Amino acid sequence: MKGNDNTAILLIHCPDRPGILAAVTEFINRHQGNILYLDQYVNREEKVFFMRVEWDLTDFQIPREKIEEYFNTLIAIRFEMIFRLYFADELPRMAIFVSKLSHCLYDLMARYAAGEWKVKIPLIISNHKDLEPVAKRFGIDFYTFPINEKNKSEQEAMELQLLKENNINFCVLARYMQILSPEFIRNYPNKIINIHHSFLPAFAGSKPYHAAYERGVKIIGATGHYVTEDLDAGPIISQDVTRISHKDSVEDLIRKGRDLEKIVLSAAVEKHINRKILTYKNRTIVFQ
Amino acid sequence: MKGNDNTAILLIHCPDRPGILAAVTEFINRHQGNILYLDQYVNREEKVFFMRVEWDLTDFQIPREKIEEYFNTLIAIRFEMIFRLYFADELPRMAIFVSKLSHCLYDLMARYAAGEWKVKIPLIISNHKDLEPVAKRFGIDFYTFPINEKNKSEQEAMELQLLKENNINFCVLARYMQILSPEFIRNYPNKIINIHHSFLPAFAGSKPYHAAYERGVKIIGATGHYVTEDLDAGPIISQDVTRISHKDSVEDLIRKGRDLEKIVLSAAVEKHINRKILTYKNRTIVFQ
Amino acid sequence: MKGNDNTAILLIHCPDRPGILAAVTEFINRHQGNILYLDQYVNREEKVFFMRVEWDLTDFQIPREKIEEYFNTLIAIRFEMIFRLYFADELPRMAIFVSKLSHCLYDLMARYAAGEWKVKIPLIISNHKDLEPVAKRFGIDFYTFPINEKNKSEQEAMELQLLKENNINFCVLARYMQILSPEFIRNYPNKIINIHHSFLPAFAGSKPYHAAYERGVKIIGATGHYVTEDLDAGPIISQDVTRISHKDSVEDLIRKGRDLEKIVLSAAVEKHINRKILTYKNRTIVFQ
Amino acid sequence: MKGNDNTAILLIHCPDRPGILAAVTEFINRHQGNILYLDQYVNREEKVFFMRVEWDLTDFQIPREKIEEYFNTLIAIRFEMIFRLYFADELPRMAIFVSKLSHCLYDLMARYAAGEWKVKIPLIISNHKDLEPVAKRFGIDFYTFPINEKNKSEQEAMELQLLKENNINFCVLARYMQILSPEFIRNYPNKIINIHHSFLPAFAGSKPYHAAYERGVKIIGATGHYVTEDLDAGPIISQDVTRISHKDSVEDLIRKGRDLEKIVLSAAVEKHINRKILTYKNRTIVFQ
Repeated sequence: MKGNDNTAILLIHCPDRPGILAAVTEFINRHQGNILYLDQYVNREEKVFFMRVEWDLTDFQIPREKIEEYFNTLIAIRFEMIFRLYFADELPRMAIFVSKLSHCLYDLMARYAAGEWKVKIPLIISNHKDLEPVAKRFGIDFYTFPINEKNKSEQEAMELQLLKENNINFCVLARYMQILSPEFIRNYPNKIINIHHSFLPAFAGSKPYHAAYERGVKIIGATGHYVTEDLDAGPIISQDVTRISHKDSVEDLIRKGRDLEKIVLSAAVEKHINRKILTYKNRTIVFQ
Repeated sequence: MKGNDNTAILLIHCPDRPGILAAVTEFINRHQGNILYLDQYVNREEKVFFMRVEWDLTDFQIPREKIEEYFNTLIAIRFEMIFRLYFADELPRMAIFVSKLSHCLYDLMARYAAGEWKVKIPLIISNHKDLEPVAKRFGIDFYTFPINEKNKSEQEAMELQLLKENNINFCVLARYMQILSPEFIRNYPNKIINIHHSFLPAFAGSKPYHAAYERGVKIIGATGHYVTEDLDAGPIISQDVTRISHKDSVEDLIRKGRDLEKIVLSAAVEKHINRKILTYKNRTIVFQ
Repeated sequence: MKGNDNTAILLIHCPDRPGILAAVTEFINRHQGNILYLDQYVNREEKVFFMRVEWDLTDFQIPREKIEEYFNTLIAIRFEMIFRLYFADELPRMAIFVSKLSHCLYDLMARYAAGEWKVKIPLIISNHKDLEPVAKRFGIDFYTFPINEKNKSEQEAMELQLLKENNINFCVLARYMQILSPEFIRNYPNKIINIHHSFLPAFAGSKPYHAAYERGVKIIGATGHYVTEDLDAGPIISQDVTRISHKDSVEDLIRKGRDLEKIVLSAAVEKHINRKILTYKNRTIVFQ
Repeated sequence: MKGNDNTAILLIHCPDRPGILAAVTEFINRHQGNILYLDQYVNREEKVFFMRVEWDLTDFQIPREKIEEYFNTLIAIRFEMIFRLYFADELPRMAIFVSKLSHCLYDLMARYAAGEWKVKIPLIISNHKDLEPVAKRFGIDFYTFPINEKNKSEQEAMELQLLKENNINFCVLARYMQILSPEFIRNYPNKIINIHHSFLPAFAGSKPYHAAYERGVKIIGATGHYVTEDLDAGPIISQDVTRISHKDSVEDLIRKGRDLEKIVLSAAVEKHINRKILTYKNRTIVFQ
């Protein structure tokens, strides 16, 4: 991954009113920050301002550890901002959850191995042993937590323990075939990305390709979204579709869907890694 | 519309077994019919054979009015076929239903006026007066049947009477904002085409663009389908989608959706006019 | 077309440096302008800043006729800006050029008649009589200028005269099958929109569908672009594609292409009408 | 890969005339073959018949080693057919050529490791050492043949020798950055699949993403095609595209293009493996 990593990223939202954009850009410019990317969006109906700005820290006069405090004091309080500050060289740490299907895992691994993403992947968690050889191929630690009705809460507790020990910032469910408990999810609010194999909200729940076949749709899709306590109802990050016809059997849908799933999941993960996503009222703002 | 119109079209489905294709093509070839298009599909899971074949009648030895009888006697009974016979020069007669939105109506009218379709459109029916000027522009009769809770059944009865008098074969609901009664629908089974402004089964019912905005989807769509008694649940003929982002307001979705709606509706109508659709178990087989 | 029309629109580009965004937004805010839309983009490689901003003039303290001067004096000179100022209630005046194919013309007319666009269309120009009935249907003046090798320059001179008399701001070539002379084009730099029936730069020139068939592509497209002296080489505004297969004959490509052409052309025209396009080095910046 | 492998596949083309379809299906049915898939297409303009048929051999009365002879004698000669016979359980043997980019190789490897394809991949050939670790991860032999102007013909001779020794049926160029010599190509006519990173015929040759950026297109694409002696001009098998905007730098195009390239290449390879492609006059017929 080439490019300058000595940058700061601000994700902001606040009630819309005049002067926000000017105030933020002036704050950065005045202290010798060089803005590299700026994207903003105003929801006129709901009167909310959203912004992502990334700037070069090379000549920035405020030291890293003081930026959050200064920005809060000088700008954020005045505009009632909710904001998050990131540094591009502080790589997020990601855990992958899988079950038995390998296509999404391979796609994530290939990008990771090729250095496409600024991320650290210390571990893979699964409820089955099947994909351990894939993890081994890429030299990633693989932990198995078989889950049944009885042991679910204690197994999840152990998973959470493992995630904490490894300072995991966010989780990616790469066709993980278990429903996470609300307790688990509360530990990672808007920090668990799932791939659902339909264009949500159509065909939520299990066996979406079978349901799509039965309904006779002419297009199938996949959806990358944050996991919330409502199954398949969290904020949507990415979606894509492909055409099918009456000639496609359920097996054909599953086969065609695999390509969608891996591309759509990786697109969602990439946006998250690059801190390009804000969530608001169960929707996402995805900056370019 | 150039091309040979002296052709017959057979739409067939029956239990799959060896020899169907050979029997049908032999029937046509032996009597000097020249096959122009042949498309067949076998659903292996459900063991059903589907076929569309179109052939030139110029040298065909069986007279038009006898083809149905001969085919039934010589072929169809043996294979337990359900079949429909059409002649390309017998133009289907189509009625359009509209309310207040003009974009789908204009698209249908433009294609009709340009001679793109082998169809007759004797009349347009509406529950509002708004689009009468559009009908006038294209010289099509326009009938208004205002509908409220009390008069619905008698108004529909008058509409049906008008359709019968005009020998209407099928109806197209071009953003018609009334739900047809089951009695009405039974008069035109799989012969009423509706455009729904979402990628069904997502966002069935009213205000799909508002629902899509609220759900935060990244793709919106439109669906052309046959009307059945279950609202927005009939066999799907055509679908298409377009990308949206968080920047799109409900008004943007409505605007972008208009293009989808008209193209998807016209695609469904064209397939129906050209006798390219078979319905089976609430799904469609759409031949190319 | 609902919505507030008492707005000003600025399209700006200039060398990138710190403070541009702050200066422009401050200029608007300080004088009680309420920013409705703001979109900016910085080309980091070429170090150029691009911006579109639209604001409500209701309480704006600078009178309309002075805005250009004030903005120039107070902001533009300092940043070496090239800028254009528009008012949303000053509708651009558009001329349409056609030949014999009606589908793009109908699509433009339908949107115009439905009031989708903030534009005035005083006239249609053609080198053939064929589409005069379409113009009549919509009550638009239709002028015929038959063109051959000998009369081309004088006919174009008369067309230009007609355009001037009608204060035409921009022209739309809706499948106009004549190549405009460089002299003609120079009168409307980046103000003539053409639809080419291929995904440029593939299949520039005549008969692109035949060329696409011969080459055996699996996707065909259409391109909306500004006309420059280099044939089919001007700045691209909009493109779209559709899948084809070996089963599609040249006639099928032409039929499928019609839908692409009209949607892609109208998309380009809409962006132009809404002053959302900047051109730079034979490329377009198309704001959302 | 589940499913019945004891099947035969026939790919046929011949001058179109009545009775071909009946003759072929009768040949299979009469000898107790159970047809599983049948797809046919008639090019009406050029009067050529194309067909792919796959049938179950379990009860077929003609032994495997005699099918070709019998079919030729009884059917093919009469209709002047050019045909190829395959058996689904005779896995084609595929070699992969790579240079330094890993994304296409990983995609091929992941599908192979997951057992998605009925193929054998004995070896990977490269002109660089970079991707040897990827090959090792998947346990595939990796051979390096560095190529410069002087050694090209002798290195290609050694590559050909290696391919022969390994009974390689077809080659896949997965972003292989060397142009194969005509001599090499003649050894594998329509049996070398390349991925080109543009929607051909646009941007043939080197650096297509740079060219796309310069031209200012709004859509980029990728093309899977057979390699012929004319660079980037062989029969196209698969294409796909994705939208871009003025905001995308060349690096963005390269990044977005990677996903296209790997999906489009794998789609082409899958069709080839499943014997679903016929080539005719530098075009492909790709059966479903």
